Amino acid sequence: MPHRAPGSPGHSRQDFLSGKPIRYYRPTGSPDIRRLIDEGFQAFNAGRLSEACAIFADKMLAPEHDTTIGLTVAGAMTPAGLGGCVIEMMERGLVDFIIATGANFYHDLHYALNFTLRRGSPFVDDRELYEDGVIRIYDVLFPADVLLKTDEYIRDFLVRSKINEAVSTSEFHYRLGLDLLEKFPASAEHSVVARAAACGVPLYTSSPGDSSIGMNIAYHELMNGSRFMIDPNKDVNEVCAIVLAGARNGCVILGGGSPKNFYLQAQPTLWEVYGIPKGGNDYFIQITTDQVVWGGLSGATPSEAVSWGKVNPGVLPDTVVAYCDSTVAFPLFCEYAVGSKHNRRQRKELVHKRDQLVAVLTREARAAHEKRLAETK
Amino acid sequence: MPHRAPGSPGHSRQDFLSGKPIRYYRPTGSPDIRRLIDEGFQAFNAGRLSEACAIFADKMLAPEHDTTIGLTVAGAMTPAGLGGCVIEMMERGLVDFIIATGANFYHDLHYALNFTLRRGSPFVDDRELYEDGVIRIYDVLFPADVLLKTDEYIRDFLVRSKINEAVSTSEFHYRLGLDLLEKFPASAEHSVVARAAACGVPLYTSSPGDSSIGMNIAYHELMNGSRFMIDPNKDVNEVCAIVLAGARNGCVILGGGSPKNFYLQAQPTLWEVYGIPKGGNDYFIQITTDQVVWGGLSGATPSEAVSWGKVNPGVLPDTVVAYCDSTVAFPLFCEYAVGSKHNRRQRKELVHKRDQLVAVLTREARAAHEKRLAETK
Amino acid sequence: MPHRAPGSPGHSRQDFLSGKPIRYYRPTGSPDIRRLIDEGFQAFNAGRLSEACAIFADKMLAPEHDTTIGLTVAGAMTPAGLGGCVIEMMERGLVDFIIATGANFYHDLHYALNFTLRRGSPFVDDRELYEDGVIRIYDVLFPADVLLKTDEYIRDFLVRSKINEAVSTSEFHYRLGLDLLEKFPASAEHSVVARAAACGVPLYTSSPGDSSIGMNIAYHELMNGSRFMIDPNKDVNEVCAIVLAGARNGCVILGGGSPKNFYLQAQPTLWEVYGIPKGGNDYFIQITTDQVVWGGLSGATPSEAVSWGKVNPGVLPDTVVAYCDSTVAFPLFCEYAVGSKHNRRQRKELVHKRDQLVAVLTREARAAHEKRLAETK
Amino acid sequence: MPHRAPGSPGHSRQDFLSGKPIRYYRPTGSPDIRRLIDEGFQAFNAGRLSEACAIFADKMLAPEHDTTIGLTVAGAMTPAGLGGCVIEMMERGLVDFIIATGANFYHDLHYALNFTLRRGSPFVDDRELYEDGVIRIYDVLFPADVLLKTDEYIRDFLVRSKINEAVSTSEFHYRLGLDLLEKFPASAEHSVVARAAACGVPLYTSSPGDSSIGMNIAYHELMNGSRFMIDPNKDVNEVCAIVLAGARNGCVILGGGSPKNFYLQAQPTLWEVYGIPKGGNDYFIQITTDQVVWGGLSGATPSEAVSWGKVNPGVLPDTVVAYCDSTVAFPLFCEYAVGSKHNRRQRKELVHKRDQLVAVLTREARAAHEKRLAETK
Repeated sequence: MPHRAPGSPGHSRQDFLSGKPIRYYRPTGSPDIRRLIDEGFQAFNAGRLSEACAIFADKMLAPEHDTTIGLTVAGAMTPAGLGGCVIEMMERGLVDFIIATGANFYHDLHYALNFTLRRGSPFVDDRELYEDGVIRIYDVLFPADVLLKTDEYIRDFLVRSKINEAVSTSEFHYRLGLDLLEKFPASAEHSVVARAAACGVPLYTSSPGDSSIGMNIAYHELMNGSRFMIDPNKDVNEVCAIVLAGARNGCVILGGGSPKNFYLQAQPTLWEVYGIPKGGNDYFIQITTDQVVWGGLSGATPSEAVSWGKVNPGVLPDTVVAYCDSTVAFPLFCEYAVGSKHNRRQRKELVHKRDQLVAVLTREARAAHEKRLAETK
Repeated sequence: MPHRAPGSPGHSRQDFLSGKPIRYYRPTGSPDIRRLIDEGFQAFNAGRLSEACAIFADKMLAPEHDTTIGLTVAGAMTPAGLGGCVIEMMERGLVDFIIATGANFYHDLHYALNFTLRRGSPFVDDRELYEDGVIRIYDVLFPADVLLKTDEYIRDFLVRSKINEAVSTSEFHYRLGLDLLEKFPASAEHSVVARAAACGVPLYTSSPGDSSIGMNIAYHELMNGSRFMIDPNKDVNEVCAIVLAGARNGCVILGGGSPKNFYLQAQPTLWEVYGIPKGGNDYFIQITTDQVVWGGLSGATPSEAVSWGKVNPGVLPDTVVAYCDSTVAFPLFCEYAVGSKHNRRQRKELVHKRDQLVAVLTREARAAHEKRLAETK
Repeated sequence: MPHRAPGSPGHSRQDFLSGKPIRYYRPTGSPDIRRLIDEGFQAFNAGRLSEACAIFADKMLAPEHDTTIGLTVAGAMTPAGLGGCVIEMMERGLVDFIIATGANFYHDLHYALNFTLRRGSPFVDDRELYEDGVIRIYDVLFPADVLLKTDEYIRDFLVRSKINEAVSTSEFHYRLGLDLLEKFPASAEHSVVARAAACGVPLYTSSPGDSSIGMNIAYHELMNGSRFMIDPNKDVNEVCAIVLAGARNGCVILGGGSPKNFYLQAQPTLWEVYGIPKGGNDYFIQITTDQVVWGGLSGATPSEAVSWGKVNPGVLPDTVVAYCDSTVAFPLFCEYAVGSKHNRRQRKELVHKRDQLVAVLTREARAAHEKRLAETK
Repeated sequence: MPHRAPGSPGHSRQDFLSGKPIRYYRPTGSPDIRRLIDEGFQAFNAGRLSEACAIFADKMLAPEHDTTIGLTVAGAMTPAGLGGCVIEMMERGLVDFIIATGANFYHDLHYALNFTLRRGSPFVDDRELYEDGVIRIYDVLFPADVLLKTDEYIRDFLVRSKINEAVSTSEFHYRLGLDLLEKFPASAEHSVVARAAACGVPLYTSSPGDSSIGMNIAYHELMNGSRFMIDPNKDVNEVCAIVLAGARNGCVILGGGSPKNFYLQAQPTLWEVYGIPKGGNDYFIQITTDQVVWGGLSGATPSEAVSWGKVNPGVLPDTVVAYCDSTVAFPLFCEYAVGSKHNRRQRKELVHKRDQLVAVLTREARAAHEKRLAETK
């Protein structure tokens, strides 16, 4: 087969794109769903999911704990339509910052730009899709054109934005979100990136070159001679500073992967690198299908994290892993949270406090450094 | 029935570190193992592993194909002792460049610095480990001190190296490897990072802030005011340029995760962003335990990659996924390769050709850009 | 950092049994849950579960199709509290016969006899449980006494029943259910075995010796010289006869295992052994976490079943596998079904028609046999 | 598509059956493979497999322990060519009895009868296979005719054997094996069922109706009015008696499923039903890809088994689960065992001692019963 881009001209098999459009479902706090989770989800992973809901709603959201809550997202959750859950959680102040794969933010832009992804099947012939120029993410289908036009928007934004320096991913996503809000006001309801900017929720990506966003930034450097780049150091230090500032810390981990580790490494960065004895997470919720027995970090348990100082050894009862596809478990989880007593918190708007928090981190790190110097004299 | 409860008070727990040291096992090309794989591994995942070995040894390594071979590594493979396989493959020219999680390169440094990781058990009490200052990676155990001293070496290197600009991860790892070779000459036999520098194999990390290496670089920026940072754009463009230059392209993917996607996105970067119709991979071998049905990229099939133009639609017979823990399958795979006919290739030493290849990419990208401009006039 | 080590000597460990009692949750047909499944479950396994609900509610339950519906159950679903879903489905005529592991029927008896199983954790120390005489099924905990008393009831029933011959498991479970209804009338609401007898739903076990029920029957033969035994031939032929009689056939498979195969082999029994060309299943729904790539029958796809004549090759669109823990997915599935249009069907009461259906099978088998004899003459 | 048996006449696409024939690979005890397992398999599941090999070779096979070793087999291992490993282990006295799914014994008969199964692919179109009359077990392919002719042999044997009563599966498989040895003497080298008869190794099936063997026995009852049936009680009691007689007990579990539970329930049968305090297994090795977190018995840990008295609480160090496809791990395991010091034991020939062992069980059970009666007076 000749080398070329997907999509042969003149070919047409439109039925690949006949499925229902995928929409961002917004949880509303159904009492029926709460009842099912409380009374019907009693054992095995239903039991774990029920525990996760209770820990989140009763402990992490309890006003007296003032928990700083990080959400990490791996797996193509925005293509699968889970952006509405994330928007609802941000809007209600139930999530304070987010670490996700670049793909989740990239594909979120399709919704912001009003392109349509459709329900499909994982059992289609990919060679036919390729001929037809249809892109597949497991069972989500959309025309290759959606990629090209989204890329075009990103490159236009990069030129327009005039950013010409090294910034954190939170800064980049924030400016991107503001641009969306300005150019596509409806995107506040249909885009995680846009809504995060409105809500002041910082969005991080642990693998900044690894997605179509990263690809287009790389293009911008190579072709336009831009000096805009992502500085991973800024991301490491901002997340570290946010975690340091938390009265309590807790996370909701969807999937695992690099975002999970990037969240969890904040505490080792504090004790191992900066010499600041912060202690580990107070709450740890993971929804995943990865398994501990394969040895990787994605499937590593809260217990394993204790040995690294990532999780407070005293809090194992407040950690839980529910083994379930996030597309099933996360909407249930959000319905439960939205229907709970503490279903709205004052938003922390951390995106506006990053500099200040990093300054605190710097101060404490210097103090720790000088203390060590004094001790080793 | 009598049994000893774990962790009685007053008990000296030094036995956490009584397991055998983990060594980098080096494959030697055993004919017995080849026979087992050819004749005994006939169906199910044994059959797939046998296919993978045959595709690699007979097709990817065939001199007339001159395949550019990328190896991606997710999961803690160096802690598990698989670095010896990687060293052997690099030394023999059977792998041309590597994309791995930062953790794999970080923990490789322990071997370079002659620290000892030990065989242990995943069923130990992490609170006791925590009390004893023992770090656990699934069933690999070592003192926390190993982290602190390795960090110290990295920070010393950062100061010594005087790098004060944005560089690619391949450049950073290359300089780190040269430093190891100079300071610890034996590390050539005991470290992937050191040997890669000696063999000219570029080492990339798709999530540069996400590991203890990234944490220490972030420290260096915050505390020393260094301007050294990783520029992910350079990584994206270098990998893209390497893939563009390949007569044929093929990959061996261990695990999945961000390294897998970072490798595979090179072709979409070419057609989708740069407008260069290179076509997808010619060979695709993955050893993983992740599953396609969870929808994530780690478990996505070669077939799904076809719709994205990541895999050439004509070559599905030369793609294979063997579902097996890499710690079992990769040593078998390497024994087979080392024992095969084409078990040594001229090394491509790509680390020294990166600038030249990126220049070619730039030229072709500009040509494609101008062609499009001309067409849309 | 202070934390309490588990299992200090002298500590009263009664708190293993302090969790909430597990109850048989009964689905009520929540419109909120239907809306979530229709609108929020769009892709990945949420999409598959949504498809499964739609196929079941719209096609399998459609009156004009008069589908004979088999439910197969592997995994400890009654200990996890899913018996209430099964009772509701039987009562409404939405399930016509059941094939389950013996353990599911055995542990259902605890509910019938008013013993209490409790919510617990999978992370308890099994040696302490053993010391305390607490039995664990993953995270379900109960005193060993529950086993002993349930066994006693079974052995008493065996003596009282005076069965002294070889019977099918459906016959055995039917008589057991009648005994429960008589001796413990409330068990109609709290026991699958009891309610199945009331509803005329035959209950089969493909591995009759493999459970505490089988163990007690074996005791009865060895110690009491009874001639009561399970005749697996009767089970094979009854299931075969039920499937043969179906206007359409469809299944809901929870888990996989031996019950799955026992259901699916009915069609091969017809064409391969009896020479009766019935054709395969018209509908196939599986909820499982087992994976196709391991090669086993539990994870085998509807597609693989086509080659065996187990699934009608024309109906693949009406087959679906949702990869999800049944404890999460099955209550959602039942809520959807109970809330659907065709949420009540005339019960088939197959337990009373078994002889008649086997007579039809015998007649057709003889006719096929004679036809073959005539042809080969 | 019309209802009929697989295989439409006149259709021909012979290339489905062009793969290499699957042969029963026989392990020879390669020192290279032992070295790889000892030195290269250090962590994660490679580490577990290495542990399993060491426990088996050094402890279970140690002459002074005289361990009674049960092998359980789930998953289609004989179709995948693993029968040769089983034959070698039986011949050397390294396995004393076997519990497997009926499918494993049924498909073993194809090898005995000299039919050919072939290597194929899991990615073929099953509707085409159905048209062509080709049967698929994951990636193993063979003509439907192989089923029909194997069935014919079984039914002929049933008639010839003149068995007209209820027997255990071990008795049935023993007589079947003797028939094979007589009619097809070469089958001793090519069939587990035949070789087991020669070696006196009893073969059990926990789900006797659930396979083509069971289907043909059911035919024999229905069509020929035979009184031959499998009595599951006999299987339960024989396995129980074998376990009771073991100086030490240990198992090698491939997969999980019903055979795993059937083996493990022997100890609960003793203490829970017969009142005989035997204590649990001394050694427990499982090779599986099933996961503990799904809650089912297949994936249940040795630790969970402790709470049931299935595993001796003092021996957890001698239990191990290696998460790996058996098609990869079992040949490696057998190579290791065959190459080990104690690579040949006096065969126990338990098939000839069943009556005697059941008599001991009966005697002890009566004694326990009378003791309890005396105590409760």
